[in-house]
Amino acid sequence: MPTIDAERVLRDLRYLRTLGAYKTGVHRPALSPEHLASMNWLKTELESLGHEVTIDGIGNVFGIAPVEGRKLLGGSHLESQNYAGWLDGPLGVVYALEAARAVKADAPLAGCAVDVAAWCDEEGHFGNFVGSRSGIGQLSEEEIDAAVDRTSGTPMRDALEAAGLGGRPRVVVDPARYVGFFEAHIEQGDWLEANKLKIGVVSAIVGSRNFRIIFEGTQNHAGTTRMAIRRDAGVACARLVMAIEQLFPTICGERTVWTTGRVTLSPGDPSIIPGRAEMLFQFRDTDAALLDRMEAALRDLVARADREGPCKVTLEQQRKGMPAQMAEHFQAAVEASAEARRPGCHTRMPSGVGHDAQVLARIMPAGMMFVPSIGGISHHWTENTSDEDIVFGAQIYADAAGRLLKG
Amino acid sequence: MPTIDAERVLRDLRYLRTLGAYKTGVHRPALSPEHLASMNWLKTELESLGHEVTIDGIGNVFGIAPVEGRKLLGGSHLESQNYAGWLDGPLGVVYALEAARAVKADAPLAGCAVDVAAWCDEEGHFGNFVGSRSGIGQLSEEEIDAAVDRTSGTPMRDALEAAGLGGRPRVVVDPARYVGFFEAHIEQGDWLEANKLKIGVVSAIVGSRNFRIIFEGTQNHAGTTRMAIRRDAGVACARLVMAIEQLFPTICGERTVWTTGRVTLSPGDPSIIPGRAEMLFQFRDTDAALLDRMEAALRDLVARADREGPCKVTLEQQRKGMPAQMAEHFQAAVEASAEARRPGCHTRMPSGVGHDAQVLARIMPAGMMFVPSIGGISHHWTENTSDEDIVFGAQIYADAAGRLLKG
Repeated sequence: MPTIDAERVLRDLRYLRTLGAYKTGVHRPALSPEHLASMNWLKTELESLGHEVTIDGIGNVFGIAPVEGRKLLGGSHLESQNYAGWLDGPLGVVYALEAARAVKADAPLAGCAVDVAAWCDEEGHFGNFVGSRSGIGQLSEEEIDAAVDRTSGTPMRDALEAAGLGGRPRVVVDPARYVGFFEAHIEQGDWLEANKLKIGVVSAIVGSRNFRIIFEGTQNHAGTTRMAIRRDAGVACARLVMAIEQLFPTICGERTVWTTGRVTLSPGDPSIIPGRAEMLFQFRDTDAALLDRMEAALRDLVARADREGPCKVTLEQQRKGMPAQMAEHFQAAVEASAEARRPGCHTRMPSGVGHDAQVLARIMPAGMMFVPSIGGISHHWTENTSDEDIVFGAQIYADAAGRLLKG
Repeated sequence: MPTIDAERVLRDLRYLRTLGAYKTGVHRPALSPEHLASMNWLKTELESLGHEVTIDGIGNVFGIAPVEGRKLLGGSHLESQNYAGWLDGPLGVVYALEAARAVKADAPLAGCAVDVAAWCDEEGHFGNFVGSRSGIGQLSEEEIDAAVDRTSGTPMRDALEAAGLGGRPRVVVDPARYVGFFEAHIEQGDWLEANKLKIGVVSAIVGSRNFRIIFEGTQNHAGTTRMAIRRDAGVACARLVMAIEQLFPTICGERTVWTTGRVTLSPGDPSIIPGRAEMLFQFRDTDAALLDRMEAALRDLVARADREGPCKVTLEQQRKGMPAQMAEHFQAAVEASAEARRPGCHTRMPSGVGHDAQVLARIMPAGMMFVPSIGGISHHWTENTSDEDIVFGAQIYADAAGRLLKG
């Protein structure tokens, strides 16, 4: 079996934490200078391993080993959510990098290799899995033209230009060249920790539906405008949030989740009735039919709110991630690897979060594994995993890669 | 009667509109460079009239006529709400300036004068009537130390320093020197327009209560955190907004108004459960006892939300403007002036908005008059009043000033 270097794995992850350091986490938005620095670091590491490396026109990093044998494609993403954790993304990239090193050094696997991909913007600063969808040939130039950073409003074209990537060709993966795509990630939930487990064998990835809901009322003075004639967009927004809270528990599945992550009232002044409100709303489940039913219910609520007034209410679909099943032989390889090192330390489980693996699963077999998140916390700077669990996960990833490459 | 120069009134107001122009309105926050430019313009105009002018350590402008006879103090404010209208404030300053000119030129009023004040920050960028409260000696140094710009977070001390006002003494008005304080303003509602009236004789000014309500939950991943264990601060906020919407109509008065002007969810990301939410909430009425009852009801709602969980809910009082009665002889002077020029064009009415006159009313007789707002719109860049109504109002203001100075 390929053997990892535990200190090297930790050193690599800790180095990446210095790029955009924020408290004990990172702030490394897609295509930021800190994200570029992480891409260039990965390029250097892969080149020193002998891989041929490309950073392409969407910001994907590809490291291709110059070998003729069986190949596995591994990786994840390097950018972070805003002001969030250090492992969400980088863990899977470093595991793939370390597995590439370990496989290269493993005599029985001569001629085989792990190629490494870091997909740009899995976190959705500019859109919906733009990096991995580009990598499978399912992202149009028009979509890039229209993409803007959800925080700063910067067009993605401008951000690519500023990063020196404007005009570069985009690389599309050849699925025939790979046994499949394999991604490791922190769990971002507390299931493994609560059950004293070390490895999650991902069975399926949830699909998510993301929406922007817009309320248009009439901006006016908060002191002189009688209650009876108001068209307060903020109140209309609160009313819809509560209508969702009432309806969704009656139609959801056991693991369905929904969230209003952002609300913006305009102009946002204490003495002005909000003339406009926006909410960002999403829900997730592994059952595509259930997602469809919930979307229909949401659209009904919005249409009713619009009809009943006094504000105009409209809905725009944003991200739409389809649920994806993970390949059975990938699940078996991870399971066997974990069982061999530490019997009973693993479980099969769905992923409550979207990942690039669900996109890659459209064109080749795909698998995922999780390591524990301390306290289940993620998308927050306190996100963490113990060193011991990080190192154990890296070895299981390399073991499973070895099994998959042997076939 | 003192006679105004209609073209000069319009020219002055149009000039002020150029300082921080935004569409057809202005963006001239308190102590911004544009606000300073407007103060300096007023200083120059008053000095050319022979007034002695001070811009004091809180940003108030005082123009004092060097005469021994009866004096009226007139004025309003020069700063604007963010990206809002051109007349809210400047109209009352220009009316007072024009009345000062007209009184000086009016032989029968020899020895009498209108002194002019532009109170800093009536709009509450830094606090609660800080300018006029300083002007009546009711603003402590400690309160200035603590004040920060609600939009930028800049401490008021820094803003005063940057404006070159740091360390200047603050001027306190001597009420014994004045027959009273007289302020003109746009109505900021549609009562005058809807009733084809030209002058509102303000009978009383509403009091307002402003609060910041804070919801503390647990920030976590929107995909992996089960609904049952969530502590979503955004949902808690929406729930309170709706609880207020249900309760307040059952306890309010006929003219009570309430508004949630701003909601902030932190961190505000679509894939993160908000761990913290804040709402800025206010309500207004002319009845102090009713305001007390509504505040008690609000505090009950907050305490119940906090008790029922899952989020911690707390409330901080911000502005608290007491209702104020306008002096009867001021109301009579405005009424008689309007009736003399255009019979039946006026009405007595309360002000649904707080004004500096309510602060000045604590130490001397005070009066206010309104001119129509087109469509009732204010706190928005489309705020406007017809030239004809602006000019008519300026003459009524000067006429009323003449009546008050004659005694």
